Amino acid sequence: MGAQGVTPQTEDFARWYTDIVRMADLADYAPVRGCMIIKPYGYELWENIKAGLDRRFKATGHKNAYFPLFIPMSFIQKEAEHVEGFAPELAVVTHGGGKELEEPLVVRPTSETIIGHAFSQWINSYRDLPLLINQWANVVRWELRPRLFLRTMEFLWQEGHTAHATAEEAQAETMRMLDIYTDFAVNDAAIPVIPGRKSDQEKFAGAEASYTIEAMMRNKWALQSGTSHFLGQNFARAFDIKYLDERNELQYAWTTSWGVSTRMIGGIIMAHGDDKGLRLPPRLAPIQVVIVPIWKKEDERSVVADAVARVRDELTAAGVRVHVDDRVGITPGFKFNDWEMRGVPLRMEIGPRDVAGGTVMIARRDIPGRDGKSSISQGELVAAVTRLLDDVQNSLLRQAREFRDANLHEASSYDELKEIVTDGWALIPHCGAPECEAKIKEDTKATSRCFPLELNKERDLTGLRCAVCGKPAQGYAYFARAY
Amino acid sequence: MGAQGVTPQTEDFARWYTDIVRMADLADYAPVRGCMIIKPYGYELWENIKAGLDRRFKATGHKNAYFPLFIPMSFIQKEAEHVEGFAPELAVVTHGGGKELEEPLVVRPTSETIIGHAFSQWINSYRDLPLLINQWANVVRWELRPRLFLRTMEFLWQEGHTAHATAEEAQAETMRMLDIYTDFAVNDAAIPVIPGRKSDQEKFAGAEASYTIEAMMRNKWALQSGTSHFLGQNFARAFDIKYLDERNELQYAWTTSWGVSTRMIGGIIMAHGDDKGLRLPPRLAPIQVVIVPIWKKEDERSVVADAVARVRDELTAAGVRVHVDDRVGITPGFKFNDWEMRGVPLRMEIGPRDVAGGTVMIARRDIPGRDGKSSISQGELVAAVTRLLDDVQNSLLRQAREFRDANLHEASSYDELKEIVTDGWALIPHCGAPECEAKIKEDTKATSRCFPLELNKERDLTGLRCAVCGKPAQGYAYFARAY
Repeated sequence: MGAQGVTPQTEDFARWYTDIVRMADLADYAPVRGCMIIKPYGYELWENIKAGLDRRFKATGHKNAYFPLFIPMSFIQKEAEHVEGFAPELAVVTHGGGKELEEPLVVRPTSETIIGHAFSQWINSYRDLPLLINQWANVVRWELRPRLFLRTMEFLWQEGHTAHATAEEAQAETMRMLDIYTDFAVNDAAIPVIPGRKSDQEKFAGAEASYTIEAMMRNKWALQSGTSHFLGQNFARAFDIKYLDERNELQYAWTTSWGVSTRMIGGIIMAHGDDKGLRLPPRLAPIQVVIVPIWKKEDERSVVADAVARVRDELTAAGVRVHVDDRVGITPGFKFNDWEMRGVPLRMEIGPRDVAGGTVMIARRDIPGRDGKSSISQGELVAAVTRLLDDVQNSLLRQAREFRDANLHEASSYDELKEIVTDGWALIPHCGAPECEAKIKEDTKATSRCFPLELNKERDLTGLRCAVCGKPAQGYAYFARAY
Repeated sequence: MGAQGVTPQTEDFARWYTDIVRMADLADYAPVRGCMIIKPYGYELWENIKAGLDRRFKATGHKNAYFPLFIPMSFIQKEAEHVEGFAPELAVVTHGGGKELEEPLVVRPTSETIIGHAFSQWINSYRDLPLLINQWANVVRWELRPRLFLRTMEFLWQEGHTAHATAEEAQAETMRMLDIYTDFAVNDAAIPVIPGRKSDQEKFAGAEASYTIEAMMRNKWALQSGTSHFLGQNFARAFDIKYLDERNELQYAWTTSWGVSTRMIGGIIMAHGDDKGLRLPPRLAPIQVVIVPIWKKEDERSVVADAVARVRDELTAAGVRVHVDDRVGITPGFKFNDWEMRGVPLRMEIGPRDVAGGTVMIARRDIPGRDGKSSISQGELVAAVTRLLDDVQNSLLRQAREFRDANLHEASSYDELKEIVTDGWALIPHCGAPECEAKIKEDTKATSRCFPLELNKERDLTGLRCAVCGKPAQGYAYFARAY
């Protein structure tokens, strides 16, 4: 049974998604086509995502900075593949201060070019390297078929940009950031992503190699949830990023870029949500525990309120994000549904009998009905809540991992692939050629997701041949329907 | 004596400012005219400003959200004064996705219009009020004479937007936010701002009344450092923000908006800086304590490094922001100058003799030479550093307050005002008419800063007459040269 008014996942997943985003009050479409308004509850989730990533970036020596929103059109044109990739998606400012501009300004779709220009001025010698910069910003990519969080004209993200003295160091940074994204996705967002390398067709416009974390949604589609790019010397050559090496010779630097966006919110919704609403991982949930006071007679009210305040204060002091739902004129049942919709990991009920017994009743969002309920003594409040939050976090990850593993299939033939991708991800030996990917897409609508790193390292790839064209394969690749 | 290469304040304050911003590595001009790049050290300062403000906003019940960068041109035109004020400063997107747009999009110069539209959809009944929203965002106002941080085409800020059931509640919110800005400026930024009301001429385009915190810079110019606007029902009428009151009657809401921007960084530089560089208030300083290891012979090096690491770890564990300057091939003297330039409140020197004696030498940025130095025992490290950081914080505020008070003068005639504003702020009885302000500006280049709230409350204003035109005065107002 779905919550009131929610389209069940099995009936229409796309409508389920929109229902949840709207009914959980995360976001809304804006009056400008393709743009969204991130509402307070959605933004708080984003703030927690930001904090989790930012902490990891800073711990690995990255510094935040801020670069301009506007990029001269001529900059975008300096790197050939880059302009080819982004030209169709640009928003262009042609007028400013009441006059037509001599050179149009592009609203940044990503900042490799303008940051490349800055790097060329900041970097002189090998002593200035590595240069490890991150930016939290909004970017704009023209978009005619928007979907809230997943694909909007403007979105929020972080974009890391680094420069290094050698290809090896830049490659190591590319992988370090992919590891950080994986760590964040798995441990904070409870999404068991698969890190892998993108095929040539799917890589970033201007990159030598792109890496991705791919997540499986509840409809078995894939969501690219973060990317890390090894840019080689492409942007260094286009923007003249040079340094004097230890022998006093001028060298081009090697650069990387990597990003995670508000799309991650869409991933969290679709990796964990059910027909009752969101299910948020406790590490990112804006509210970890909601307390619903239960009372019928007026004389019970203040006794319950006192106990609720004590519990709230004790949990808040312990660093738990608590909210008390003391709305009047609304039934507890309505409140329960409301907080289930919003995906709060733990719901606490405190009534007169709980107060008398020195207990509270806790219900887990991840386990429906009686099985998810337990009565705990107020004496062990903090310990019990901390343990239960960990349990919910682990349980969401375990459920998502079991779901993912049940829907990853190895195809032994192209025909089998066609069958699998109607309802799962197919692993096949793949040559990496755009032609084979185009054929698969035309036949099945599935796209190449990645060459999974771990699996390709574990297996013997000798003599492996592409399942489509029979030519030598680069390795095993996942194909799936994707956002 | 200024630091190497810094133009002294007394010689050319504008050049001093630019020198400091560049040499302290806070920001740089971008290749797009009027835009800036906020470098890591400047951005870290902004992150601390954000944290200080955001904490205060959340503590008073405000929620963060995010609204689109692009605003339909028709929205901007809905509030007559608003469009008149902002039209000359707009950046306009006319092309997107390779096509000319049917309706041009404005890059937000401020968000009253788009948020007003959202509020009209979010608010139904009095139960939805007050609605207390804040947004951290970039905004764009076309600017041909940019100055780093003070006036740039794109800048970062927060903009609060709230809706209320009554004029009284909206007015109270306007003042509450002005109080919060004052509290932040005084206690975190150590700037003794003067809160006051703007004259009609200087108020926000579309507001009923604007309030400001005005700060005095070291050249005695004023800097408007934050504003809080009572918008009356102007935007509610333009955007149809209505609610059903308790008697089930439709009413227009009352709204407010308030903002602080990266301009605050310019204020901190110019309120505290001297010819040696920045002087940052400890509560906002990215680095509160810099440790410079002092050693000559190789065998001293590791002994000193061990002591430095111990001190760093102890301070870090106590929540102090510490940096160890272990650059090699650079003299301690050079490092001292460098950290003075960057305004670090406390410099710690640790050499072999300090290690042997179990002490460290601490130099305060706010007190030059021997007087600012003290040797403290490592046993009382955290207590001493905490106390000294408080001392520097208080000392910067005291110095700024003494400087301000010494340069606020009451003018007993218009001639006296003309004299005063060449080198200070003049207080005069003022009618508030744009004509009188225009005359003063033409004669002296000074502008009306504000009707200071406290002073006007304390004084008897009966029969007070404007110092320029002789008509009844609204109260006493400060006039000064301003950024």
